[in-house]
Amino acid sequence: MVALGIDIGGMSIKGAAVDKKGKVLNTFTIPVTKNAPFEKTVGELIAAIKDFCKQNNYKKEDILGVGVGCPGLIDTKLGEVISSANLKWDNAPLRDKLSKELDLPVRITNDANAATLGEAKFGSGKKYRNVVMLTLGTGIGGGVVIDGELYEGYQGKGTELGHITMVLNGRECGCGRRGCFETYASATGLMNTTKEIMKKYPDSLMWKKVNGDISKVDGKLPFDCEKEGDKAAKEVVDTYVSHLSEGIMNYCNIFRPEVIILSGGVAKQGKNLTDRLIKYCRKYSFGYERAPESDIVIAEIGYESGMIGAAALFL
Amino acid sequence: MVALGIDIGGMSIKGAAVDKKGKVLNTFTIPVTKNAPFEKTVGELIAAIKDFCKQNNYKKEDILGVGVGCPGLIDTKLGEVISSANLKWDNAPLRDKLSKELDLPVRITNDANAATLGEAKFGSGKKYRNVVMLTLGTGIGGGVVIDGELYEGYQGKGTELGHITMVLNGRECGCGRRGCFETYASATGLMNTTKEIMKKYPDSLMWKKVNGDISKVDGKLPFDCEKEGDKAAKEVVDTYVSHLSEGIMNYCNIFRPEVIILSGGVAKQGKNLTDRLIKYCRKYSFGYERAPESDIVIAEIGYESGMIGAAALFL
Repeated sequence: MVALGIDIGGMSIKGAAVDKKGKVLNTFTIPVTKNAPFEKTVGELIAAIKDFCKQNNYKKEDILGVGVGCPGLIDTKLGEVISSANLKWDNAPLRDKLSKELDLPVRITNDANAATLGEAKFGSGKKYRNVVMLTLGTGIGGGVVIDGELYEGYQGKGTELGHITMVLNGRECGCGRRGCFETYASATGLMNTTKEIMKKYPDSLMWKKVNGDISKVDGKLPFDCEKEGDKAAKEVVDTYVSHLSEGIMNYCNIFRPEVIILSGGVAKQGKNLTDRLIKYCRKYSFGYERAPESDIVIAEIGYESGMIGAAALFL
Repeated sequence: MVALGIDIGGMSIKGAAVDKKGKVLNTFTIPVTKNAPFEKTVGELIAAIKDFCKQNNYKKEDILGVGVGCPGLIDTKLGEVISSANLKWDNAPLRDKLSKELDLPVRITNDANAATLGEAKFGSGKKYRNVVMLTLGTGIGGGVVIDGELYEGYQGKGTELGHITMVLNGRECGCGRRGCFETYASATGLMNTTKEIMKKYPDSLMWKKVNGDISKVDGKLPFDCEKEGDKAAKEVVDTYVSHLSEGIMNYCNIFRPEVIILSGGVAKQGKNLTDRLIKYCRKYSFGYERAPESDIVIAEIGYESGMIGAAALFL
């Protein structure tokens, strides 16, 4: 028996057959036409799934169900994509449409939640039943697994983990508020911190590495330059570690998870990053000395976690 | 059938028999000897419960169970009070001790969680199944109810809702961090904001009301003086509303509850407070326009909610 996991993105849709151990057996990818209406994209997806099953000889009775991760605001109970900025879908009845055409059980969830479930069940979180994942990319995505189950908030609309105030009246956030966690601790936040600190240190190695062009700053730059002994770069990394640690401790105090998993671009810094986060969090951890310490680890699965997690809605 | 609800405090223990509708039928209170060892206090509690049942003619077969709310860090699965600053208990096997001596099923939880469950099930939250309560007192307590069930975090150690950073490197917090939500939005936080703003306005009415003695500031003062047209007091209240609203929006983004319930001293401001919070939150609410708006209401039950909620662990 397998489950199908579908990961819908703004550019392409990836699909996989996944076995009960979370192993990807076969995959497919189709492109998404930008701003195409829901009916067109979902029609292409249905055709691709049928084709994939035929080619790989998956019969209806072999398939536990079809799990779908989709960007945007998802009502998991209604099975609808309420709105998705990336896809320009509104109140799209994704679950029922797929279920009807494929004659299979279908569940949908937010793509960040799907990736969290994938990592929690089959990746870095597999030893644990209580997991918070933070995806450090353009923004901060992520999700929460409580006692082995994906927690999505009422109507599947919660766990917007990037959008809690960290600096009152701080940096502007795309959500309409100011000072949200993601404006400091996402890859974008890190780059903005880097630029701010570079301006204080005109002699920093970071300027040389970008040939004086600040628009070339990326999330790797401060980590690389710190290794070469650059003082300004160290200030950037220390500041970033404090920002990310404060958010991690917030989620420890709220959920007290067994593990915090980091994914996304910044997480590529690996143990250098997690060691420093753990050090910071131990120093400033909540007064309850005997509360369990949460592990902080890097995601293992990476880009397939969305598909695997979507499939895991049936595994 | 009734459940017994026990609310353990630093000064006294209150108990009640509560019916299935959350109505308090009879109550008892015993004092707590300060810094008494666990064995002494729990022995007195057991005697009081036995006596209470005898006096009111509750037989074992009438009692669904005994729920207990207790301050401190509680491991709900182990049934132990891991540590309690108020009671000076350490790893106290409260559940098993009570259960053995009373020969009844016993469940224990943190006192703030018990109060949340009471309000959620039988008070302001009774229309809803997804509730966040914030108790605005010396600190910020509170709790979370997800789909009708108390959510307590892994090992019952989560939902420390007062301890998320709101102002990076802000006011010192008793938990060891800086800038926690409770250092701004608790009654204590409100008083500190009042004092800060009073110092900017030597002519404020607030100075007159405390006869020039800043140590007499309380959480009611700015609300009272604002009503009399004092500009500084209005600045205090506006600032406080922004602090509390930001925290409320954080919890909306994380849990997307149907309702936020406010209790504790500051919540006595009632509709004047909730109207302003709602206005602020609507203005700055998370970008997802079609996410459900959470109601913001004042707790109805008040001081009995701890007992009722403890009993509700069996109702």
